[in-house]
Amino acid sequence: MSAWLPLMERALQLAALGAGRTSPNPMVGALVLDGAGQLVGEGFHAKAGEPHAEVGALAQAGDRARGGTLVVTLEPCCHQGRTPPCSAAVIAAGLRRVVIAMADPNPKVAGGGIAELQQAGLEVIVGIGEAQALQLNRAFCHRLAHGRPLAILKWAMSVDGRTALSNGASQWISGPQARAWVHQLRAQCDAVIVGGGTLRADNPLLTSRGRRSPEPLRVVLSRSLELPAEAQLWQTDLAPTLVVHGPEATPARRQAIDQLAQKPGSERLERLELANCGPLALLEALAGRGCNQVLWECGPGLATAAVAAGCVQELAAVIAPKLLGGLPAQTPLGELGHTAMDQLVGWGSQPPQSLGPDLLWQLKLE
Amino acid sequence: MSAWLPLMERALQLAALGAGRTSPNPMVGALVLDGAGQLVGEGFHAKAGEPHAEVGALAQAGDRARGGTLVVTLEPCCHQGRTPPCSAAVIAAGLRRVVIAMADPNPKVAGGGIAELQQAGLEVIVGIGEAQALQLNRAFCHRLAHGRPLAILKWAMSVDGRTALSNGASQWISGPQARAWVHQLRAQCDAVIVGGGTLRADNPLLTSRGRRSPEPLRVVLSRSLELPAEAQLWQTDLAPTLVVHGPEATPARRQAIDQLAQKPGSERLERLELANCGPLALLEALAGRGCNQVLWECGPGLATAAVAAGCVQELAAVIAPKLLGGLPAQTPLGELGHTAMDQLVGWGSQPPQSLGPDLLWQLKLE
Repeated sequence: MSAWLPLMERALQLAALGAGRTSPNPMVGALVLDGAGQLVGEGFHAKAGEPHAEVGALAQAGDRARGGTLVVTLEPCCHQGRTPPCSAAVIAAGLRRVVIAMADPNPKVAGGGIAELQQAGLEVIVGIGEAQALQLNRAFCHRLAHGRPLAILKWAMSVDGRTALSNGASQWISGPQARAWVHQLRAQCDAVIVGGGTLRADNPLLTSRGRRSPEPLRVVLSRSLELPAEAQLWQTDLAPTLVVHGPEATPARRQAIDQLAQKPGSERLERLELANCGPLALLEALAGRGCNQVLWECGPGLATAAVAAGCVQELAAVIAPKLLGGLPAQTPLGELGHTAMDQLVGWGSQPPQSLGPDLLWQLKLE
Repeated sequence: MSAWLPLMERALQLAALGAGRTSPNPMVGALVLDGAGQLVGEGFHAKAGEPHAEVGALAQAGDRARGGTLVVTLEPCCHQGRTPPCSAAVIAAGLRRVVIAMADPNPKVAGGGIAELQQAGLEVIVGIGEAQALQLNRAFCHRLAHGRPLAILKWAMSVDGRTALSNGASQWISGPQARAWVHQLRAQCDAVIVGGGTLRADNPLLTSRGRRSPEPLRVVLSRSLELPAEAQLWQTDLAPTLVVHGPEATPARRQAIDQLAQKPGSERLERLELANCGPLALLEALAGRGCNQVLWECGPGLATAAVAAGCVQELAAVIAPKLLGGLPAQTPLGELGHTAMDQLVGWGSQPPQSLGPDLLWQLKLE
């Protein structure tokens, strides 16, 4: 084990403090040690547009950084963005050494920062705690690699696999601890997506209940814009709402949404038409708006379309110790077209967690 | 904490060695300490018809039991059954003290054994480790209280709540570890029950794969006796099979089963008609055959009927990290007639367990 790993783990903890607020940027944490190895500065990237982690840590260290070491979870950037390039600041601080967990997958950086530091005569050590850093920023990396945010599909069901009773009743299948966990999950996402059916059936609020500021973008995907006139999502004081539809939405329905957006308290209600309206086009549009990680909280129709389109990388199944039963009762997913067990894709599972009386099982596509 | 508790816990461990083999009797374990408190005998009830735990422990202790203490998980019996009453043997051994976890709920005993010991001048301490003893013998107590065995409903499903693909394929949803755990569960049951649908679809073997000897009774509940001519269950070399049907079964179908039972290797195939053929009447018949604990391994139709009839006390849900999907795909249960969440009965849950890639969640009716 590298002697740098415990310090990098501290830097990764700092980085994680930015969870849910850094998009479209990654989470980054940094430590500065003086020439004698004493910790003299700490920083993390708190929000897009605000200083990068290295800059904060170097500012805290001041002159004590001279001859010292920067430990940073991501390669310092070498391009002018909303803030000046970090590589220049690192060089200007007179450091002797930089320890980096992972190279920046952003094509504007991609090793350029490391090269600049080396050219300036600094010792650069790369790859300390890389696996943890990749895990921490897997959503950012996924967006850069695929042009779509990493997407989590969440549902709550009874142990007999139902997400509602036969009559549609579904509040509440899971208990307060599980619902609080979902608020926390929303706080780590840039957008929360439902379909028109969920909006009509549940009239959800879809916020993190203040755990994230700003609240995640609330998204309704409804090709035809068949949506209710009254909905909690039309009130945008707490959080913005994006209504996404296809070309088939009638002019009257478009107008209805646009008129809603004129009302006081609904200023952050926005309508977006997508030519090929579906999960894939939606995620591409959300990537374009800087979303690294999004949450599907939709019913079985949209969830099935999202899974089938490869638009789900992680699952979070909350399972309640209840038997709902019901032949026509809703289940988490609809038809996937499988005809044999060996066609099923593999999902890796984490150990299950108890959430009060309920169970949480998180899976990742392998 | 009583000083006797660690010894009683040892006696309970001994008792549990009889799991799956003592029915219709309970599991019982016993220790004998000499007058100086040294352990001089151990015993457990290994099988119905064989000596009771106390008798085995006292035989091992011999004369050293005189002036000593018997620690036993259940009140010694005071009635002549397949073996002589234990209370008389305990008194004859010249013990000074008997420590008992719980009184025998059997109406033929029910405190009579304790009274006999006290009348003979022995010190009797009752209730040490009682909660564990009740848990260990909950199936035996349930049968005595209700006239039906304690019943466990087991299913294996995908994380999206499916027990088969739309085309009926279901082998295998869960992995080898989970299937081995089910064999172990069968080994703790006196009977394993399926319906005609499961027999036709899966042609199961339903044994414990040698983990229990004798194997549990395999039961097929099929009102009309619409059963295949060929099935693994018709071979009774490994385990006996009981075919249970209602009055509506045609003479031809009854005869077909009876003819199967004449074949070599099918000697332990038995047919039973029940007037009111269903889960309740079946469990009463199985209680009459000495079953303390049975396992429902049936499809959604029979499982739903069993739940609705109050014939399920415990659930074991094996959940696989797979998405099966499928609109017409089978789910664990059918219609239960609930119309509001507050109608649902409460199930207490144990912490989930990992079984290889799968998850096991066990619930108990509260």
